[in-house]
Amino acid sequence: MIERLCIVGVGLIGGSLARALRRAGAVAEVVGTSRREAHLLRARELGVIDRFLLDPAEAVRGADVVVVCTPMGAMEAVFRALRPGLAPDAVLTDAGSVKQTVFRAARAAFGRVPPFLVPAHPIAGTEHSGVEASFASLFEGRRVILTPGDAAAPAAVDRVEAMWRAAGAETDRMAPDRHDEVLASVSHLPHLLAYVLVDLVASGSGDPLRYAAGGFRDFSRIASSDPVMWRDICLENREAIAGRLDAFQARIGELAALVRARDGAALHDRFARAKGARDTYVEGSKR
Amino acid sequence: MIERLCIVGVGLIGGSLARALRRAGAVAEVVGTSRREAHLLRARELGVIDRFLLDPAEAVRGADVVVVCTPMGAMEAVFRALRPGLAPDAVLTDAGSVKQTVFRAARAAFGRVPPFLVPAHPIAGTEHSGVEASFASLFEGRRVILTPGDAAAPAAVDRVEAMWRAAGAETDRMAPDRHDEVLASVSHLPHLLAYVLVDLVASGSGDPLRYAAGGFRDFSRIASSDPVMWRDICLENREAIAGRLDAFQARIGELAALVRARDGAALHDRFARAKGARDTYVEGSKR
Repeated sequence: MIERLCIVGVGLIGGSLARALRRAGAVAEVVGTSRREAHLLRARELGVIDRFLLDPAEAVRGADVVVVCTPMGAMEAVFRALRPGLAPDAVLTDAGSVKQTVFRAARAAFGRVPPFLVPAHPIAGTEHSGVEASFASLFEGRRVILTPGDAAAPAAVDRVEAMWRAAGAETDRMAPDRHDEVLASVSHLPHLLAYVLVDLVASGSGDPLRYAAGGFRDFSRIASSDPVMWRDICLENREAIAGRLDAFQARIGELAALVRARDGAALHDRFARAKGARDTYVEGSKR
Repeated sequence: MIERLCIVGVGLIGGSLARALRRAGAVAEVVGTSRREAHLLRARELGVIDRFLLDPAEAVRGADVVVVCTPMGAMEAVFRALRPGLAPDAVLTDAGSVKQTVFRAARAAFGRVPPFLVPAHPIAGTEHSGVEASFASLFEGRRVILTPGDAAAPAAVDRVEAMWRAAGAETDRMAPDRHDEVLASVSHLPHLLAYVLVDLVASGSGDPLRYAAGGFRDFSRIASSDPVMWRDICLENREAIAGRLDAFQARIGELAALVRARDGAALHDRFARAKGARDTYVEGSKR
């Protein structure tokens, strides 16, 4: 049971977490903070938070769990701002998509990686943003990856794990650098491809999007995601993402060469291999 | 009203068309033909066709409308095979994704583009194949692009247009080369990107697909499509597709450079522009 939960940045993820924990009876009080008062007023109106404070240090005071759900680029400033108010027994966690960033931000703001810090990443979301888009079941059956550092207190790790399980998620643990590599591949790369595709197609003459079918619609859904969040992810996970973009670019070049060479057998093999992997993935994710 | 419809290749598209026309009371009899008897037996069992003949020339005999729904690579051979049985007043159409191919195949098989030929392309489908996956509402509200040549008889064009409207689709007309360019962009390119992405991600170590979220699942859906069909599309629409792959590859290179240069402003601009185009597209397709 969390006595007082403080959510820093009450949007889709923070709002959905508050809703899920409330529904599970796993939290007594939810306090919000944000740079934008309008967001906090709306969150209170929706019953997502009980009250709010604009000063992060005041907002975290007396909270036993603090969850930072701001864009990655704000992480260090947020840590600095809330630090003076953190209770000695508080647990600090986040929901960011790049975990090495959280360690960098913590080192800069706290002078070390504090034992009460347990970075985590819920692999869930929608293309919508903001507290209006939040809902209690967002994390049900979804995976949350915890990336505690060597200095993390085991009790703090357990606390964060229990919180996400109460919200309906399955939890996993991983080294931060491994997390950032894996996510560059399965999440960051697809988002960037969707942005590039939509931008490329929309720039064509004669309204080509008019002729787009369901495949395009599905494929491009994530191109409606928040540009600020994705800018920050690109900057924070720069090396892994640039590496994945290079690899993808090379594969596209190979494919174009096979098309030009009319190599039907090689094209078929690649498509069949991908179909096999995708069908296996879908089967597996049904279980 | 179609007295006798002959479907050559009774799979997802041909089967769904037969179901839709039957449901609309727009066809009296449906005859199927295919290289695979098992498919035809199943189609008859499901009530999609009334009867079948293995010889295409026999199957089309007495049909007033013949729809070829085979992979693009088989088009010329199918035209040659059915030619001897075609009634003088029959209308011939197809459902292929590359329209210049149909003209090439017709010139080769008939020695000219016959006036009774009206190539068409329903922009509809699912990642599933075969008559088992067919359903009557597949074309409802979807777009079908007709690409009649200069020699096409107006009555034949009207006939094919009326058939697709009876199946619930909206129709459009376009020059074959323009069709192939547009579809390379909005359909062929996304399918190939999905294949390449799944193949690339699945080749990573440590089962990265385990950590894939909804975005990846949606994005990769079309990678479960039929590899033979997509091999043929690549071979038939070779130049347009290679051109789109080149353009995409260049854009990926630009993006990787922006990531490496930490150019947050330029990244944000590109993502915001894509989000704008995608949001507009979704709004528009709701109307």
